[in-house]
Amino acid sequence: MQIEAKLEALGLTLPELFTPPSGTKLPFSWVRVRGNRAYISGHAPTLPDGSLAQPLGKVGVEVSLEEAYQAARLVALAMLGSLKRELGDLDRVTAWLRVHGMVNSAPGFTRQPAVINGFSDLIIELYGNEAGQHSRSAVGMAELPFGIPVEIEAEVEISE
Amino acid sequence: MQIEAKLEALGLTLPELFTPPSGTKLPFSWVRVRGNRAYISGHAPTLPDGSLAQPLGKVGVEVSLEEAYQAARLVALAMLGSLKRELGDLDRVTAWLRVHGMVNSAPGFTRQPAVINGFSDLIIELYGNEAGQHSRSAVGMAELPFGIPVEIEAEVEISE
Amino acid sequence: MQIEAKLEALGLTLPELFTPPSGTKLPFSWVRVRGNRAYISGHAPTLPDGSLAQPLGKVGVEVSLEEAYQAARLVALAMLGSLKRELGDLDRVTAWLRVHGMVNSAPGFTRQPAVINGFSDLIIELYGNEAGQHSRSAVGMAELPFGIPVEIEAEVEISE
Repeated sequence: MQIEAKLEALGLTLPELFTPPSGTKLPFSWVRVRGNRAYISGHAPTLPDGSLAQPLGKVGVEVSLEEAYQAARLVALAMLGSLKRELGDLDRVTAWLRVHGMVNSAPGFTRQPAVINGFSDLIIELYGNEAGQHSRSAVGMAELPFGIPVEIEAEVEISE
Repeated sequence: MQIEAKLEALGLTLPELFTPPSGTKLPFSWVRVRGNRAYISGHAPTLPDGSLAQPLGKVGVEVSLEEAYQAARLVALAMLGSLKRELGDLDRVTAWLRVHGMVNSAPGFTRQPAVINGFSDLIIELYGNEAGQHSRSAVGMAELPFGIPVEIEAEVEISE
Repeated sequence: MQIEAKLEALGLTLPELFTPPSGTKLPFSWVRVRGNRAYISGHAPTLPDGSLAQPLGKVGVEVSLEEAYQAARLVALAMLGSLKRELGDLDRVTAWLRVHGMVNSAPGFTRQPAVINGFSDLIIELYGNEAGQHSRSAVGMAELPFGIPVEIEAEVEISE
């Protein structure tokens, strides 16, 4: 697969470890590995330095659909960054399994699937239709931490 | 188990593949199979032809509790339709494991469990207390895609 | 590990089985075991007798951050109570894997991680950094059943 070569060809870089706003304790693992499964925590959209990407707020009012699509794409990169730190090599992900996409939704905003496509499109572009395929939900939350527009958690199969 | 015979005896038919409102791209799998697990995407309530079932809207205001219960039952049928297309035979589902039930909730509506019972009751009626039993959450979302009243995702064990 | 001795040393007792408000049917399993996995239903904060703990309502308005932290800790105890009834011995949990923390959030409340830390801190204190570590999401719901401030579902690895 050579995911990292594909990322480079696309001009994409993986962000540093997420640095939450000061005063926030996050006492859990970004990726929890057990046997041939990796359980991936809910990730936020981040900049290359690991800080929160802008804009923050509710999709449909403060954040446009196109901005939210880009935020979901940044979540994919943040998740790949965590997987790279945990697994050493992104090619160890042999199958994406479950993606739970959560959109910070303004009242009446119902295009959550179009937002989470920013995540799915990149994962399928990188991993292909076989390994990259996944089950998915894309749903509207009342609030998300720090006011982020999108948060996504996932489960993948890995080679041991 | 002979799930399909039971469905027929109950006068129930499985709907066609979900046809989302035009302009919606859904680049993921309705069922993702890997080894002895099937990860099932969030499903909407649909009519036999695969189009969205009515009524749409928030449970507690636009959609009554009884209508939402029926919508959750339709989600079960939609999910069984996807499993049938993917697995060929619904008897290959050997154990329901995890059900995450999401209800599009009007402010102050807190009877999410009574809604998602429309799903659980049918699954247990079909699969019995052993294979049909499952862990579950039933929670209130701010918004759901297309304004559907209920969306449910699940994970099941299958025979390989 | 001897989790139960640790609970006793901390002066903590596990609550009885959850008794939902009258008229509520909950036709599912609190813990669904299959092979070396236990899928744990969404749990509510409960008192030792299994009734709902107070206060109820939205975090950020009716429920303070500190009260919600304590509620998340009570959810951990309720979940351990369910695991004890199902598994017989809490030491059979060999690894926490996935935690999905849902906070009944007032508009503008974005400190969901600080709430769910009430759950994570206790699990890590009891199980240690190795077995107790877990992936996690902490997100804001529009409504939760019965108006509870926090609901958490999880998946763990168990010894067979």
